[in-house]
Amino acid sequence: MSPRPVYVLGVSMTQFGKFPDRRGIDMGTEAVLAAIRDASIPLGSIQIAYCGHTRMGTVAGQRVLAELGLTGIEIVNVDNACASGSTALRGVALSIAHGMADVGLAFGLEQMSKAVSGVIPPREDDLEGALGRVMPSTYAMLTRRHMDLYGTTPEQLARVSVKNHKNGSLNPLAQYREPVTIEQVLQSRMIADPLTLLQCCPNGDGAAAVVLGTEAAAKKWGRTPLIRVAATTLRTGGPRLVEADMASSPLTIELAKEAYAQAGIGPEDLDVVELHDAFTIGELVHYENLGLCPRGEGGKFLDSGATELGGKVAVSPSGGLLSKGHPLGATGLAQVYEVVTQLRGEAGKRQQPDAKVGLTHTMGGAVTGVDSGACSIHIFTR
Amino acid sequence: MSPRPVYVLGVSMTQFGKFPDRRGIDMGTEAVLAAIRDASIPLGSIQIAYCGHTRMGTVAGQRVLAELGLTGIEIVNVDNACASGSTALRGVALSIAHGMADVGLAFGLEQMSKAVSGVIPPREDDLEGALGRVMPSTYAMLTRRHMDLYGTTPEQLARVSVKNHKNGSLNPLAQYREPVTIEQVLQSRMIADPLTLLQCCPNGDGAAAVVLGTEAAAKKWGRTPLIRVAATTLRTGGPRLVEADMASSPLTIELAKEAYAQAGIGPEDLDVVELHDAFTIGELVHYENLGLCPRGEGGKFLDSGATELGGKVAVSPSGGLLSKGHPLGATGLAQVYEVVTQLRGEAGKRQQPDAKVGLTHTMGGAVTGVDSGACSIHIFTR
Repeated sequence: MSPRPVYVLGVSMTQFGKFPDRRGIDMGTEAVLAAIRDASIPLGSIQIAYCGHTRMGTVAGQRVLAELGLTGIEIVNVDNACASGSTALRGVALSIAHGMADVGLAFGLEQMSKAVSGVIPPREDDLEGALGRVMPSTYAMLTRRHMDLYGTTPEQLARVSVKNHKNGSLNPLAQYREPVTIEQVLQSRMIADPLTLLQCCPNGDGAAAVVLGTEAAAKKWGRTPLIRVAATTLRTGGPRLVEADMASSPLTIELAKEAYAQAGIGPEDLDVVELHDAFTIGELVHYENLGLCPRGEGGKFLDSGATELGGKVAVSPSGGLLSKGHPLGATGLAQVYEVVTQLRGEAGKRQQPDAKVGLTHTMGGAVTGVDSGACSIHIFTR
Repeated sequence: MSPRPVYVLGVSMTQFGKFPDRRGIDMGTEAVLAAIRDASIPLGSIQIAYCGHTRMGTVAGQRVLAELGLTGIEIVNVDNACASGSTALRGVALSIAHGMADVGLAFGLEQMSKAVSGVIPPREDDLEGALGRVMPSTYAMLTRRHMDLYGTTPEQLARVSVKNHKNGSLNPLAQYREPVTIEQVLQSRMIADPLTLLQCCPNGDGAAAVVLGTEAAAKKWGRTPLIRVAATTLRTGGPRLVEADMASSPLTIELAKEAYAQAGIGPEDLDVVELHDAFTIGELVHYENLGLCPRGEGGKFLDSGATELGGKVAVSPSGGLLSKGHPLGATGLAQVYEVVTQLRGEAGKRQQPDAKVGLTHTMGGAVTGVDSGACSIHIFTR
């Protein structure tokens, strides 16, 4: 029962931004059509589809695909909060790996601008949330802890935002395409001390899609270079927040090890990484969790320039969640769009030179994975 | 890559009914705990979980399992409207069949009483829905067409409700446990002519769970007789409603063939069936679609007594959606609870004698499968 290798045949993402007046479903249809065109496959070759979203209503996937006449196949709608798109990708990857389909479609969409203004509000039965434990404040606690333990500075945090907005300014599909300065970041409105507005990802809308297939399908239809899905993982976090080390993500650490083992590589082999930089501290802490640098040295690693475009490993070359935007269900697949575009050498002004190995990382419904949310890591190679 | 056989280790369902004051998540936890107890497995043996629901909010599955400390595994939340529970079951079954887990948990929950009163309202962008094409009226059109084509009578329709409420009166977990007469059914309030109130499934709340495992796990922990998942299928419908024959479900017909082929049986081998009797006509038309009787003879087949408890094939022995209730995410798994309870010979007063082969059938987001919704069929054998 050795799984079959899985390849990326096509990728797409729509313009990210705030489009409250668009019909949300149409963004999904647009992304799916673009991925199918990118893959140059006939519509009828798609044998299975997974749709990731959190707020688009029941059977949203069917509604998207019905617009294209793509029915009569197995369609599964999945939710894992911010990791919904990655969960959809994994569903299709496993279906192909285990012989249930030769070609499959993963897509994700979200219209946050219609559902949420500002902070995602806590559920009515979320006692910690009612006491203020919403996303920005939880990340702020993580930030304080990281500063205390390792001496991480406000300037280092701001520099994450500066780097990612600079990358985003090179990405025509990003929600925010204006470079920002350290001063602008630090002087923007305080959201949850020490995190300012420009250190928090925006609400936004968008969709993304990925077509996967077998080696035979990739050779028949796929564009060169062939991009392989070298690792697919998904897991939930362990103990409750209060019991855990607040400055690391045991879940990401463990899952990264699993992903590296699947791919037969180590973090030193990575050329591009799209990670869960929902807040600036997220990027620094996940450098460490993913093994890009030793624990506590996230700030220093950033300062070294290693994660800039052209550095050892370009992190968030797309602009990341901070600048590209974060429509929940689309995010994981938009990360794949970026990594594949980089591995194809088609990223234009934001191209990481000679990128051969890339990783995507999303957290869902949890901050550092110590809560009960999801984490998903995928690795791609050419 | 031949898949491994998959067995049912444990099943459960909660009391179905209207519990708007309960914490919805707690129903899920209750069902999961009961299924784990039924399976007599250690909590730590569960390696993967799928949660089916439509309206319980993002990462509902994680919230349910966190209450039990069941984290650190892969959890996927799935939605396929009324087929969400069946989609969760299929996710776990495939994970075990293809070697990704040895023991897995499928559960589903819904608290309809909090979300919907009466008819499920159409989405704002549902043009047909805005013109009145909601569930009861669509089933009413199907009913009229079936009456026209095949001479199906109001009394035959009413008799479906009478049979299922009689079965439900023998099921302590059913939402409605009072037998009804043909006169009561026909004289109850008209909902969508010719469908009266007692011919429409109620809104309700509840949860259900199923533990699946490999043959080794079943032999180690599973109760006897061993119950095998002999077929698992999921697919969406084809053309739009207006283009299709209104009196049959091509999707169910095709998918039933696929399921029978997987299981190596035919419809004549079935002893118990739980099908999608959301409205009385659903049961008659699905007799035909599932091949229990020739097309157009659903009414006659019912009249013959073949689908009563003790008949050739007991249909909706649990009371079905009409009497047991229909909390969307739970329904597909509650069907499995019933079929497995029947195959174990533990159904008490509603036991179908010597039941060896059972089938479950759910439709999601569509009436007869000619729309873009889902259909899922599973077969179980002992």
